[in-house]
Amino acid sequence: MSLLINPRDLQFILFELLQVESLCQSDRYAHCDKAMFVAILDTARRIAEAEFEPLAKICDEAEPRLEGGRTILPDDVAKAVNAYVDGGFLNASADLGDGGQQLPVVVSQACMGYFVAANPSLSVYPFVTNGVATVIGNHGGAAQKKLFAEPLRAGRWLGVMAISETQAGSSVGDLRTAAIPTEAEHYLMAGSKMWITGAAQDFTENIVHLVLARIAGTPAGTRGLSLFIVPKYRMPASGQPAVWNDVNVVGLNHKMGFRGISNTVLSLGDRNDCRGYLVGEPNNGLRYMFDLINEARIWVGTGAAALGYSGYLRSLVYAKERAQGRTAANRDPNTPQAPIIEHADVQRLLLTQKAYVEGGLCLALYCAWLVDQSKLAAAAGDADRQADLVLLLEILAPIVKSWPSEFCLEANKLAIQVLGGYGYTRDFPLERLYRDNRLNAIHEGTYGIQAIDLMGRKVSMAEGRGFQLLLSRMRETAGLAKKEPALAWRGSQLERYLERLAAVTRKISGPPGTPASEQTLANAVHYLDAFGHIVVGWLWLRQAMAADMALRGGAQPEDAGFYKGKLFACEFFYRRELPKVNHFLDLVEQAEATCFNMQKDFF
Amino acid sequence: MSLLINPRDLQFILFELLQVESLCQSDRYAHCDKAMFVAILDTARRIAEAEFEPLAKICDEAEPRLEGGRTILPDDVAKAVNAYVDGGFLNASADLGDGGQQLPVVVSQACMGYFVAANPSLSVYPFVTNGVATVIGNHGGAAQKKLFAEPLRAGRWLGVMAISETQAGSSVGDLRTAAIPTEAEHYLMAGSKMWITGAAQDFTENIVHLVLARIAGTPAGTRGLSLFIVPKYRMPASGQPAVWNDVNVVGLNHKMGFRGISNTVLSLGDRNDCRGYLVGEPNNGLRYMFDLINEARIWVGTGAAALGYSGYLRSLVYAKERAQGRTAANRDPNTPQAPIIEHADVQRLLLTQKAYVEGGLCLALYCAWLVDQSKLAAAAGDADRQADLVLLLEILAPIVKSWPSEFCLEANKLAIQVLGGYGYTRDFPLERLYRDNRLNAIHEGTYGIQAIDLMGRKVSMAEGRGFQLLLSRMRETAGLAKKEPALAWRGSQLERYLERLAAVTRKISGPPGTPASEQTLANAVHYLDAFGHIVVGWLWLRQAMAADMALRGGAQPEDAGFYKGKLFACEFFYRRELPKVNHFLDLVEQAEATCFNMQKDFF
Repeated sequence: MSLLINPRDLQFILFELLQVESLCQSDRYAHCDKAMFVAILDTARRIAEAEFEPLAKICDEAEPRLEGGRTILPDDVAKAVNAYVDGGFLNASADLGDGGQQLPVVVSQACMGYFVAANPSLSVYPFVTNGVATVIGNHGGAAQKKLFAEPLRAGRWLGVMAISETQAGSSVGDLRTAAIPTEAEHYLMAGSKMWITGAAQDFTENIVHLVLARIAGTPAGTRGLSLFIVPKYRMPASGQPAVWNDVNVVGLNHKMGFRGISNTVLSLGDRNDCRGYLVGEPNNGLRYMFDLINEARIWVGTGAAALGYSGYLRSLVYAKERAQGRTAANRDPNTPQAPIIEHADVQRLLLTQKAYVEGGLCLALYCAWLVDQSKLAAAAGDADRQADLVLLLEILAPIVKSWPSEFCLEANKLAIQVLGGYGYTRDFPLERLYRDNRLNAIHEGTYGIQAIDLMGRKVSMAEGRGFQLLLSRMRETAGLAKKEPALAWRGSQLERYLERLAAVTRKISGPPGTPASEQTLANAVHYLDAFGHIVVGWLWLRQAMAADMALRGGAQPEDAGFYKGKLFACEFFYRRELPKVNHFLDLVEQAEATCFNMQKDFF
Repeated sequence: MSLLINPRDLQFILFELLQVESLCQSDRYAHCDKAMFVAILDTARRIAEAEFEPLAKICDEAEPRLEGGRTILPDDVAKAVNAYVDGGFLNASADLGDGGQQLPVVVSQACMGYFVAANPSLSVYPFVTNGVATVIGNHGGAAQKKLFAEPLRAGRWLGVMAISETQAGSSVGDLRTAAIPTEAEHYLMAGSKMWITGAAQDFTENIVHLVLARIAGTPAGTRGLSLFIVPKYRMPASGQPAVWNDVNVVGLNHKMGFRGISNTVLSLGDRNDCRGYLVGEPNNGLRYMFDLINEARIWVGTGAAALGYSGYLRSLVYAKERAQGRTAANRDPNTPQAPIIEHADVQRLLLTQKAYVEGGLCLALYCAWLVDQSKLAAAAGDADRQADLVLLLEILAPIVKSWPSEFCLEANKLAIQVLGGYGYTRDFPLERLYRDNRLNAIHEGTYGIQAIDLMGRKVSMAEGRGFQLLLSRMRETAGLAKKEPALAWRGSQLERYLERLAAVTRKISGPPGTPASEQTLANAVHYLDAFGHIVVGWLWLRQAMAADMALRGGAQPEDAGFYKGKLFACEFFYRRELPKVNHFLDLVEQAEATCFNMQKDFF
């Protein structure tokens, strides 16, 4: 049994819920079929288990460190990353023409789930590299694509995103790193970057940093940011030695989680010799970077779910094996102790985790599937459908980033609880998963910032069309469920939550074009809490409908338990989780102002 | 400003809420006065800041390790513990006749708050030592008191509790360590003990282990457990060298938090030469140990609140200093960035923490104050009043252990969130506080076990008298609040929650003498969640009433902000936290059975 993600569940989400094999009817995915997807998923799991997972504890304990200008990493890091590249996962969803496998994004995200669950730190290298190559591919010139995107796609070099600075973390518009034009085609870069992940390693011959910086004289704020390619080494014509590009790792940040990958403070241009190559047009940097940022939000969601998932499976195995105490029905101390899974409260800890992690993973894969749908609409020249899909993705982006980060961290907390004292020892990976997952609600945009993005921007975007599209998809599911005797009550319940969400959303939305008030935004996180729970509840109902159909269709006996588990988890979510939404929406509806009115001198 | 606990808040809880100075009217505390309490609190804070806090990061990073039979600890651990002992804190609340200071327990617990906030690992040594001395003092023979309790009380030796075994963690009745009677006064101990905190150190000349073990032939389960004193060294008549008592540290557990104190696997009697001295009567061991266990529950609650409190203060300081972004009212990127405390969502993160940590600390100190009240009742020979106070403490014990462990851990999570990326680096102590606090919902009885204790035993104990006593204290506060215009609404709100809690409690209680059903107990944690929130809500109302009175009485200007903060935190708790209780009580009332009915094969 895999301790990363349940392969049966992945197949259920991909083939029974999202019917990913139907993508193969399109030209884009005509070279694929279901058997191929299954084989690729299995390969991903095997590489994750064989190459990534054995390094997880080692990477956690032996953080990267700098020694005499070199970065010391645990042995086998390069080998593991190479196994990933050699397995074809780096460019799994890139176009065939770009050397990729042109797989559906939903399949490559599912594979990514295994890798993050096995070793989150190592999974960052290929994820970011793929993102950097994509941005250069989308917006760079032909020479840049050849010089930089190709070796990235081949996995010979790795890519790094360099956005934040010490004074500008959440507030991207306050970046100061300067790009000074020269007579030549390059700019001279000057400034320092903070929180730069993966920038200290020397197992690849080069690193390509994608740097947001400000060309002198451009406007303040985000509208004055441009995007630059800044390699660690400049690669002259073949035969010549590489030239160091004055990119300086001046420090490492030491984190509670994701400890296996360097998180660096970079200084660019200490010797006034750091060359940057402008990508696309000046002042469009943040827009280009968003190609990567939206993808990163799905990736964070997948990863948070995967970390939660692995904790769930490990606590499940433990609960079946560990004997401790007796059930309430048997207090005779002369009888053997019972496996703790027989205790009702341990079942609660496990079922809560199951509902969170399978729900979170389903949400992340649904969003990845929307990316595929939007690619197909674009390929088919159906601009309206593509625009709709992009709006759906826009409204879901803050949710897929945030919901798993919050609730699958909670799952990790509960996994520790199942193991009791063993849960908090470092002999088991539960406490590490919990530490790793704690970063996800912060990096790539905090929970609070995602909430403001959702409430202040996304629900009202395009006159609220994204919101209406999502609502109608969810209403459709509720309507279908109401026709199924076993699920009718849940369909009605979902419908009630949807109408409440719609009503509250109408109430908080001012006239078109006016931003939400500061007092309204003060409860943005609770709007995100409620919205996320409703979306996950919707997907749980879809999972329950698929399971119910399979059971009615006469599932194989060995599968029946799996499907019944889905029904139980959906039941759990509707009876025990969704009711929490009411309180959150009450706060939003009232624009509850206690926090807003609190004065800083009263703390 | 202290970064451990706000001294102003401690004074508020002790003197304005609990009126601790009135204890000095009793004979027991006649030697004390308020000025003395204030001076002692200040001394505790200074020693905690000067001796404990500077070692916190060092202790976290340099875990105890065994080397050639010795335990390697960071330098200055012994110095810090000695400073605590020399300051008189080890026996702060012990009787004058036992060499203590005979201070109110509530004052010594408040002092303990500073020490745990400064360095939770170091605080364990004196806490457990005091507990071991108390148990020996209460139940040991005269020779045992002289031989063992005295050097413990003097801080020359340290004490250790040894209950758990590998196969018996939560299930104490399954302990197997054997005590074999001999012709002499001692037993020969044989067995191994797990999770034994503080047993590996050699900076004191001896360690006294209080060991639960089973004399051959006694009944299975908890009724067959006896208590033994097992010293690390046997101390013969003066002039003779100490003899090692065959207590073997065979391993160390490596934990995610509380890393500065050893957590050991002990083996007793590998050479068949481990002598244990029976305390009191055979088969009463667990009952004796409970003197220490109830005290430990208050200590865990105090500590969890203190760790949360320190995180809150540190995130508050950061939020006032760190400039990032601009408020919704000002989006001009040319203006300077605002301190993040001006963002409404950061105010929410801070006010949530304030409500949790000040509420949790107030709960813990209230319980400590009840211990003092019960001592005074005993001294006055008022057996009825003493019995009532003990019942109140019994029903509050699972709550004071659990509520701060859950919600002040959440506070630590939010403190990290305030700091963003800095929050998860090890440059700031926030991530360490979060790791430390994660242990509190597990050690000394898990959250689930406390919940079963509350629902399955404590509410129905003595025909529910403890519950009724607590309810009437809470009703009294609600009634008083209803007469105050500013707080009347909150009084009514509290009353409604109290009536609901009473009704649900009646419903789940079977006929007297019958245990709660397994299905009812399956929701015990939600009963604990709800009950804990109501109790903390009650104490928040008491805090608000005291603050309101002070403001109406014309508080000093520099104090007015403090009192207004109390009113805001109470408002926060009533508007945003207490409503969550309804959902939890719904689950309890319905005996919601999804988790209970889940089958292990469906996971």
